[in-house]
Amino acid sequence: MKKIDLLNPPEIIRRSNWRDRFETKVSQWLTPWDGEEPIDIGFIGIPLSKTSISISGASMTPNALRELFANVTTYSIDHDVDLQELQARDMGDIQMHVTDLQRCHANIEQGLTNVYEALPDLFPIITGGDHSITCPSVKAFKKRFSGKVGIVQIDSHMDVRNLEDGGPSNGTPIRGLIESGTVDGRHIAQIGIHSFANSKPYREYALSKGITQFTARQVFQEGIEPLVEKAMEVAGNGTDAIYVTVDMDVLDQAYAPGVPAMVPAGMTSWQLFDAVFMLGQNPKVKGFDIVCVDPMQDPRRATVRTTLYVILSFLAGYMKRS
Amino acid sequence: MKKIDLLNPPEIIRRSNWRDRFETKVSQWLTPWDGEEPIDIGFIGIPLSKTSISISGASMTPNALRELFANVTTYSIDHDVDLQELQARDMGDIQMHVTDLQRCHANIEQGLTNVYEALPDLFPIITGGDHSITCPSVKAFKKRFSGKVGIVQIDSHMDVRNLEDGGPSNGTPIRGLIESGTVDGRHIAQIGIHSFANSKPYREYALSKGITQFTARQVFQEGIEPLVEKAMEVAGNGTDAIYVTVDMDVLDQAYAPGVPAMVPAGMTSWQLFDAVFMLGQNPKVKGFDIVCVDPMQDPRRATVRTTLYVILSFLAGYMKRS
Amino acid sequence: MKKIDLLNPPEIIRRSNWRDRFETKVSQWLTPWDGEEPIDIGFIGIPLSKTSISISGASMTPNALRELFANVTTYSIDHDVDLQELQARDMGDIQMHVTDLQRCHANIEQGLTNVYEALPDLFPIITGGDHSITCPSVKAFKKRFSGKVGIVQIDSHMDVRNLEDGGPSNGTPIRGLIESGTVDGRHIAQIGIHSFANSKPYREYALSKGITQFTARQVFQEGIEPLVEKAMEVAGNGTDAIYVTVDMDVLDQAYAPGVPAMVPAGMTSWQLFDAVFMLGQNPKVKGFDIVCVDPMQDPRRATVRTTLYVILSFLAGYMKRS
Amino acid sequence: MKKIDLLNPPEIIRRSNWRDRFETKVSQWLTPWDGEEPIDIGFIGIPLSKTSISISGASMTPNALRELFANVTTYSIDHDVDLQELQARDMGDIQMHVTDLQRCHANIEQGLTNVYEALPDLFPIITGGDHSITCPSVKAFKKRFSGKVGIVQIDSHMDVRNLEDGGPSNGTPIRGLIESGTVDGRHIAQIGIHSFANSKPYREYALSKGITQFTARQVFQEGIEPLVEKAMEVAGNGTDAIYVTVDMDVLDQAYAPGVPAMVPAGMTSWQLFDAVFMLGQNPKVKGFDIVCVDPMQDPRRATVRTTLYVILSFLAGYMKRS
Amino acid sequence: MKKIDLLNPPEIIRRSNWRDRFETKVSQWLTPWDGEEPIDIGFIGIPLSKTSISISGASMTPNALRELFANVTTYSIDHDVDLQELQARDMGDIQMHVTDLQRCHANIEQGLTNVYEALPDLFPIITGGDHSITCPSVKAFKKRFSGKVGIVQIDSHMDVRNLEDGGPSNGTPIRGLIESGTVDGRHIAQIGIHSFANSKPYREYALSKGITQFTARQVFQEGIEPLVEKAMEVAGNGTDAIYVTVDMDVLDQAYAPGVPAMVPAGMTSWQLFDAVFMLGQNPKVKGFDIVCVDPMQDPRRATVRTTLYVILSFLAGYMKRS
Amino acid sequence: MKKIDLLNPPEIIRRSNWRDRFETKVSQWLTPWDGEEPIDIGFIGIPLSKTSISISGASMTPNALRELFANVTTYSIDHDVDLQELQARDMGDIQMHVTDLQRCHANIEQGLTNVYEALPDLFPIITGGDHSITCPSVKAFKKRFSGKVGIVQIDSHMDVRNLEDGGPSNGTPIRGLIESGTVDGRHIAQIGIHSFANSKPYREYALSKGITQFTARQVFQEGIEPLVEKAMEVAGNGTDAIYVTVDMDVLDQAYAPGVPAMVPAGMTSWQLFDAVFMLGQNPKVKGFDIVCVDPMQDPRRATVRTTLYVILSFLAGYMKRS
Repeated sequence: MKKIDLLNPPEIIRRSNWRDRFETKVSQWLTPWDGEEPIDIGFIGIPLSKTSISISGASMTPNALRELFANVTTYSIDHDVDLQELQARDMGDIQMHVTDLQRCHANIEQGLTNVYEALPDLFPIITGGDHSITCPSVKAFKKRFSGKVGIVQIDSHMDVRNLEDGGPSNGTPIRGLIESGTVDGRHIAQIGIHSFANSKPYREYALSKGITQFTARQVFQEGIEPLVEKAMEVAGNGTDAIYVTVDMDVLDQAYAPGVPAMVPAGMTSWQLFDAVFMLGQNPKVKGFDIVCVDPMQDPRRATVRTTLYVILSFLAGYMKRS
Repeated sequence: MKKIDLLNPPEIIRRSNWRDRFETKVSQWLTPWDGEEPIDIGFIGIPLSKTSISISGASMTPNALRELFANVTTYSIDHDVDLQELQARDMGDIQMHVTDLQRCHANIEQGLTNVYEALPDLFPIITGGDHSITCPSVKAFKKRFSGKVGIVQIDSHMDVRNLEDGGPSNGTPIRGLIESGTVDGRHIAQIGIHSFANSKPYREYALSKGITQFTARQVFQEGIEPLVEKAMEVAGNGTDAIYVTVDMDVLDQAYAPGVPAMVPAGMTSWQLFDAVFMLGQNPKVKGFDIVCVDPMQDPRRATVRTTLYVILSFLAGYMKRS
Repeated sequence: MKKIDLLNPPEIIRRSNWRDRFETKVSQWLTPWDGEEPIDIGFIGIPLSKTSISISGASMTPNALRELFANVTTYSIDHDVDLQELQARDMGDIQMHVTDLQRCHANIEQGLTNVYEALPDLFPIITGGDHSITCPSVKAFKKRFSGKVGIVQIDSHMDVRNLEDGGPSNGTPIRGLIESGTVDGRHIAQIGIHSFANSKPYREYALSKGITQFTARQVFQEGIEPLVEKAMEVAGNGTDAIYVTVDMDVLDQAYAPGVPAMVPAGMTSWQLFDAVFMLGQNPKVKGFDIVCVDPMQDPRRATVRTTLYVILSFLAGYMKRS
Repeated sequence: MKKIDLLNPPEIIRRSNWRDRFETKVSQWLTPWDGEEPIDIGFIGIPLSKTSISISGASMTPNALRELFANVTTYSIDHDVDLQELQARDMGDIQMHVTDLQRCHANIEQGLTNVYEALPDLFPIITGGDHSITCPSVKAFKKRFSGKVGIVQIDSHMDVRNLEDGGPSNGTPIRGLIESGTVDGRHIAQIGIHSFANSKPYREYALSKGITQFTARQVFQEGIEPLVEKAMEVAGNGTDAIYVTVDMDVLDQAYAPGVPAMVPAGMTSWQLFDAVFMLGQNPKVKGFDIVCVDPMQDPRRATVRTTLYVILSFLAGYMKRS
Repeated sequence: MKKIDLLNPPEIIRRSNWRDRFETKVSQWLTPWDGEEPIDIGFIGIPLSKTSISISGASMTPNALRELFANVTTYSIDHDVDLQELQARDMGDIQMHVTDLQRCHANIEQGLTNVYEALPDLFPIITGGDHSITCPSVKAFKKRFSGKVGIVQIDSHMDVRNLEDGGPSNGTPIRGLIESGTVDGRHIAQIGIHSFANSKPYREYALSKGITQFTARQVFQEGIEPLVEKAMEVAGNGTDAIYVTVDMDVLDQAYAPGVPAMVPAGMTSWQLFDAVFMLGQNPKVKGFDIVCVDPMQDPRRATVRTTLYVILSFLAGYMKRS
Repeated sequence: MKKIDLLNPPEIIRRSNWRDRFETKVSQWLTPWDGEEPIDIGFIGIPLSKTSISISGASMTPNALRELFANVTTYSIDHDVDLQELQARDMGDIQMHVTDLQRCHANIEQGLTNVYEALPDLFPIITGGDHSITCPSVKAFKKRFSGKVGIVQIDSHMDVRNLEDGGPSNGTPIRGLIESGTVDGRHIAQIGIHSFANSKPYREYALSKGITQFTARQVFQEGIEPLVEKAMEVAGNGTDAIYVTVDMDVLDQAYAPGVPAMVPAGMTSWQLFDAVFMLGQNPKVKGFDIVCVDPMQDPRRATVRTTLYVILSFLAGYMKRS
C-alpha cells in the first residue's frame, strides 16, 4: 500500500450490520482509501482546533462526520443524482502535534502538498478543525496551479485579524493569505458577514484590500443565489481556480447550535445548501473546505449532520458539472 | 360505562389548580371520555415504537402530549376559532404487547375497528408511536367506507422499504398498504421527501406505483399551499375518504429537534401548520395520525409542543368546514 | 459618587485579558457607570421573575447579559454604525425584595423615577425580569411627559389577564396600565400574538379597549415592516412618547429556546431585529424594555445572546435618528 | 364528597396500562383521596418555592413525585414490609397564590389546620416546595397537641437567618418557629450542617438558642445511626410530638444533583434512608415534610426519585412501629 | 476467513492517530477478530433491547464500548496485571431482526452455540442489550457442559416475572431459565436486590425456588466480599460451571446514571469492581455477560465507561487464575 | 497601583446585591487585589489548557471559580474556622498566548517568579488550566528556596509520559520536573493512581525514579489519612518545602463529572477534602495548585463547586497551622 507522508488512516470506521438491500449509505460508498485505488474525490480530515481564540472542539469533526456516515444515504431526490457514481474515498487525517501548533500548520501545508503530488487530479473535500487550517491549505492548493487563485468564503467572520495579537489563529486565515501574497484581496468574496461579530477597523482593512463582502442581512434580504453568482464572478475573474471555504458559524444559531462562535440571525440551512450546490456546479471550483463545528457542544450532533449535508450537497452540484 | 375492547383509559390526567377564569386550557376541554358521552373527535394514543429501525421513544408521545394539555389554550387567534365548540375527548390508548410486535399491529387494526364500530361518526386523531402504526390504522379506516381511500403523507421519508429485510417497521407502512391492496399508489401524495434520507431504487418503486412525491426543496421553493392543493387532488380524486398522516421528521431539525431521524433543511412549523389547517378544512379528510416524535430526546418538550399545535391547527381547519 | 436610591451597582463585571487591538467588545464600551459621567444610554436591570405565573429564572437575565458583554462587538456591518459613539453605561439593578413582591413593583416605579429625576435626558434600556415589570416601569416613564404615552408591544401574549385571579403577574401588565389609566388602549399596538396561547374572552377585552393586535401569522404572511409601521402610527398618534416592550417569547421556539413560555411558529430573529431597528430610528420612542428570558433553561445562552443582539440592533437604529 | 377548604385535588393522576399481575406500583396504592375514605396516611403537596432566596423550581416537586408513582413498587425487600398494608391516599395540594407570598404561608397554616380538624388521626406526608413551608406547617402541627413539639431537621443549612433582610424565606423557618415561640431551640436537633454553606454568627445564634447541631463531617465520620439516636433524644425529651423535616440538599451533590443549593461532601442516600427509617419507627414522630428539590434541574428526575424513596423508607419504618 | 453463522463483524473500529509509544490502549489489543487467530477471550455484542419493558437504548452498548476502546489502557495498577497478555479479540455482534423479537432470542441461542462449536475453549465476554439476552445465552452456554450450571447475578431486580403478562422480556430471564429446566433455582445467587423495585409475590416465588438473595442494603452493611464468597458457593456447589451476569442498574444512580431503570442507594463502583475481580479469579466461572446500559441517556458516557471498567476488572481477576 | 509583569487583573468580578448582614460570602473576602495591600494568600489563575492531550476547557476554570465566589461562605463549621481572618485576594491571571504554547509555559514560570519577587511571603493558590502548568509553576516555586522541594500529587494519572511524542502536555509535568533536575523522584508522592488510565512501562519508570505511588484502590481500602501521612513524609523528608498539586480527575466520576479524563472508582469528595485539610495544616507545605476541571462539561458547575471547596478546605487547614 502506498503511504502518503503526514497522512494517517481514518480513526473511525463505521459499518451497519442491518442493511436494506435497496439503499446505499454513505458508509458503504465513502470507505477508507486503500492507497491504491484511483479516486476522484478524497475526504481529508484536519483535526486541529487548538489554534482557535475561544475553546473549540472542532478537532473532533472529522471523526464525528465518520460516525454519521452510516446514517445518511447517497441519493439526492432534490437534484436526482446518486453520489455513488463518484469514485470517492476517506483518505484519513493529516498528522497533528499535541503542543507545537506551528508544526501543525506546517504539516497541513506539506501533507496536502504530498497528497496533491501523489494524486494530481484529486478533488479534495477537507474538513477541519478550525478556520486557521485554510491558510496552509490554500498555500498547498495554490501550488497546483500556474496562475492565481480566488476564494469564496461563506462565513460570519472576516478572518482578517492582525497576526501580532495572537499568532495564526482561526481569526486570521484570510489575512495570512493576503499578507503572504498567496491570494489577492480582489479575488476574495465573503458571504454572510455578521453584525456585532466583527469590528469597523477590519471592515476598513478588508475594503482597502479589495475584498468583496456581502453581509448576513444582505443574504436575508436579497436571497443567496444572486450573491453566490457575484461571489463566483469575483473569485473566478482572472484566476485559474476557486477555493471554497465554509465556516459553519455562518448559519443562524437555530440551524447550527454546535459551532464555537454561534450567532443569531444568520443564514438558513436551505440557503447554505443552495449556495454550495451552485458552487459545486462551477467547474472552476477545485478545492473545498468546511470548518468550525464543535461536536462536543452539538446537541444530538445536529450541526455535524448539517455539515455532512453541506458536503453532500456540494458533491450533488459537482455531479452536475458538464 | 361502555368499554371498547383493546382500548385502555388514558395513563395520565393533567389538571391545574390555578385557573384564570377567562381562559380555557386544552386540559379542560380534551378530558377523558367516560364511554358514554356522544363525541365528534376522539384523541387515541398508540404507544408503539419498538417497530422502529433505529431506537425510538415515540411510544411516550401520547402521554407527553397529555402532560402538555394544561399549558395550551383552545383559542386560535390566527383563525378566530375556539376549539371548545368541538365535542372532543381523550379516549385513551390502544393495548400494546411488550414483546410480540405482530400482535401490537393486530391490536391496532382490531382496536380501531372496535372504536369505529362503537362510534360510527367519530373523527379520530391518532397519535403514535412510530410510522408503522399507519399501516394497520389505514386498514381499519378503510373498512368504514365502501369505496377507495387516498392518503396525504407529510414526511421526509417515503416509507416504501421492502418487507423482507426487517418486517413491518416504521420504514414500510406505505409499502404495506400498497402491497396489501388497501390503497392504490395513484391515490397517495407525499410532501416533504428529503435528500440523503431515501434511496434511488425506492424513488423508482414509488413512481412505478403512481405515488405523487413533492420534495423538501419543492416546499422550500414553491411554498406549501400549492403542493397541499395538488396532494388533496391526488388523494381525493376517485376516493371516498382521505387519510392524513404526518411524520414530524418532515420538519427541519431546528423546528423538530426531538424526532428519532432528524434532518436539516426541512419544512418550517408555519408551513406544517398551514398544511394541516388546509387539510382540516377539506370535508373529504376523515382520518388523521401524527407519528415519530421522541419525547426522551426532545429538549424542553419543544417537538411535543409543536405536535400538539399541529393537532390543534388541524382542528381549527376542521371547524372551518362548511 | 452620586448614589441613586434603590439602584444598586452591577453584580457582574466581565473583562477579557486577551484583546485584539483593532476590535472593541461591548464589555469595553458598556462599562459600569461611575455615578458622575454624563450619559445618553443607561442599561438598567430589573431582576424580578417571582411574579411569573409559571416558574421563571428571568431574574438572572441582567447578569447573563453582562457575562456576554465580552463576546460581542460594537460594530453593525449591516447598518454600518459603531455603537461606541454612544455614551452608554451599565447603571446596575433596581433593588428587589426576597419575599415581598408588591414592594418589588413599588421599588421599580420609585427607582426608575429616581433615575429619571437624576438624569432627565437618559434613554433607558431596561432588562427584566418578567413582563410584570412593564407596568411599574411605564408608570415611572409616564411621569417624564406632560401628555400621553403609547406602547408598541412585541409579544406572543396579550398580557391583559384579570388582576383578581393571581395579582399583578407577568400576565397582567397591559391590563394594569389600562385599568390604572396610565395608558389608553387606543395607543397600544401588539405584534406577534399567538394562537393557543391566549383566550377568546381576552381577545374581546383587548378589542373593546381599542388595542390594535397583529397575530403571529400576520407577521409570517405580511412581513414585519408594514406591521411595525402601523404599530408606530397607533402608538404615536396623539401621544408624547412611545415605550417599546419586547417579550422574547414572541420568537419561534427554534430561535428562542430559553423563554419560560415557548411557542412554535413565532417570529424569526431577523424579523425581530428589523422591528427594533425600525423602532430605534423613530425619535418618538423614548423608552425600551425586554423581558422573559430564562437563562437557566437556555442552551449555550442562545436566547440571552439573541436578547443582546435585540438591544444592540435597537441602538443601531437609535444612532440613525436624525 | 367532603371538600376541605384550601385543599385542591392532585394535579396529576398517573396510571399504567401495562401491568404485571404480581406487582403493585405506588400509583395503584397512593391513589387520589375521594374525601370520604378513612385514611391513615395523607400525601399533601405544597407547591411553593417563590419564597426561596435563589431561583427554585421546588414548587413542581409534588407533581414530579406523582409522575413517578407508576415506576416504583410498594415492597421493601430490605425491611420485608409491603406498604400496601397502609391506608394511604394522595390528598392533593394546598392552594397557593401567584404573587402574594404572605397569603401562601397563611394558606399553608390554615389549610393544614383544616386537614387536621377533618382527619384528627391522619399522619401527614408533606412535600414542598421550599423550606419556608416548614414554619407554617409546624404552626398548624403544634395545634394538634396540648404540649410541646420537637424537631429533627436533616439539612445542610441551619435556616435561622434573620427575618429583616428578606422576609420569611427558605432560609428562615427555624428562626421563625423559635421567634414565634412555637418551638424551643432546645427541642431542635439538626443533622448534616455544611461548611461554607452557613455563617459563624448563625452558628452562634443557634447555640445560644440551645439547638443541637451535627455537622456533615460528623455524619461522615461517626455514621448516621448514633446521631439520629441523639437527635431523637433531643427532640423527644419533654415534648409531645416530633416533627421531622428533611431538606434534600443535605445529600452530597453526587446523590442529589437536582437541589437548588447543592453542596459537595454531604450525606449518601443510604445514610438518609437509614435515618428516616429510624425516625419512622419512633412512635413520637407524628409529622413529616420533605423539601427543596428542583425537578427542572434534575437530570432524569434522579433526585425526585430519591425523594420518593425517602418517603417510602420513612413509611417502611412507620410500619415497624409496635 | 472463517465466518461463523449469525455472527457479524463489529460495526465500529476505533483507532487513534496519536500514540504514546509506551502506552497500550484497549483499542490496540481488543482488535477485530480475523476469524482465524486462536483466541482465549471473545468480546461478543448482542444489540437487543426492544425486549425491555420500559424504553431502552441498551442495543447501542456494544458500539458505545467500542468507541471507548481508544480511551482506556490495558494496565491494572491496582492488581499489577497487563491485559495485553491475554489473547482477546472483538468478535462482533449476533445478528438481530428489526421486528421479530422471538427470532432475536433464537439467533442469540443459535449464534452463541455456533461460536462455542467453532471455538470450544473460548471465554465469552457478552455485552447486551438488555437482560432478556441472558436466557438464550445461558441456554447456549449450558450445552457446553455435561453437568449443571450455576448463576451469580449482580442486579437490583430479581428478573423472575411471569411470562404471561409480556412475554420474554428483560424482567423474565431467570424465570425463563428456571421454568425451562435450564438452571435450578438452588444454584442461583442474586446480589444487590432493591427495595421498591421488586414485589413481594416475586420474593416469595424466588425463595420457593431456592434462589439465594442478598439485598442492596446487605451489600451496604456487610460489604461485598463475604456476599460474593457465599454467592460463588451457592452457584458452584454441585455444578460444572458458573455463569456471571451483571445488570448495571445494580449500581447506585450516582454511579450509573445511564441505565434505563435507575435506583438510588445501590452499590458503588468499587464494590462492583471488587465483586467481578473476585469472580474473575474463580476458575469455575466460564461465562460472563453485562447488560442494561443505555448510552443514549448516559451523560458523557459515564456508565458505558464504568461498564468497560467492569469487564476489564473481571479480566484482571481472570489473569490471576492459577 | 503596582503592576506585576505578566499578571493581568481578574476577568470576572462577582458581587451580590442581596445580602444577609450576618453572612460573609467568599466574594466579599476574596476580592481583587489592588496591587498595594499586604496579603498572605493570593489566588492566581492560569487559563491554559490547549496543552492537553484530549480536548479540555480547563482554561475556563479560574473564571468559573470567580462566578461561584458569591455562592459560598467563608465559614467551616466542620473545623470551626472562618477564612475571613486570612488576608487573601484575587490576584488575577497569568498572561497567555493564543497559539504559542511554549510561550505560555515561559510566561507561567516568569510570571510566578515576578509574583514571588514582589511578594516574598505570599502563599499561592494556583488554579489551572491543565496539569502542564505544574512544571513551570514548580520551577518558579523552587527558586524561592535554597534547598530541595518535594511534591504531594493527588491524581489518577502519573503524568510521567515521554516528552518526544507530544511535547510538554498535561501528561508530562512530573517527567519534566524530574528530567530538568528540578525535583528528585524520591521526593514525590502520588496518591490515587488509577487502573486502566496508566501504562505498565510508566509504572516501571516511576518506580525506577523513586516515586512513591498509592493507587486508587489503596485509598478505597486503607483510607486517605494514613496515605497522606506517608506522602507528607516522602515529600518533606530532606526538603525545604512541599508543593501540593491536585488533579481533580482523582475523584470518582460520580463526584467530579466535569473533568476531561473522568474515571470510575476514584476518591470521594470527603477523602479529598480531608486530604487537603491535612496538607494545609503542614507548615512545610508552601505552594498549592489545582487543575484539570472543564467547566464546559460540568453539569450545574458541580465540579467547579467541589474545586472551590477543595481550596477552602485546604485554607481551613492552613488556618490551623500552629
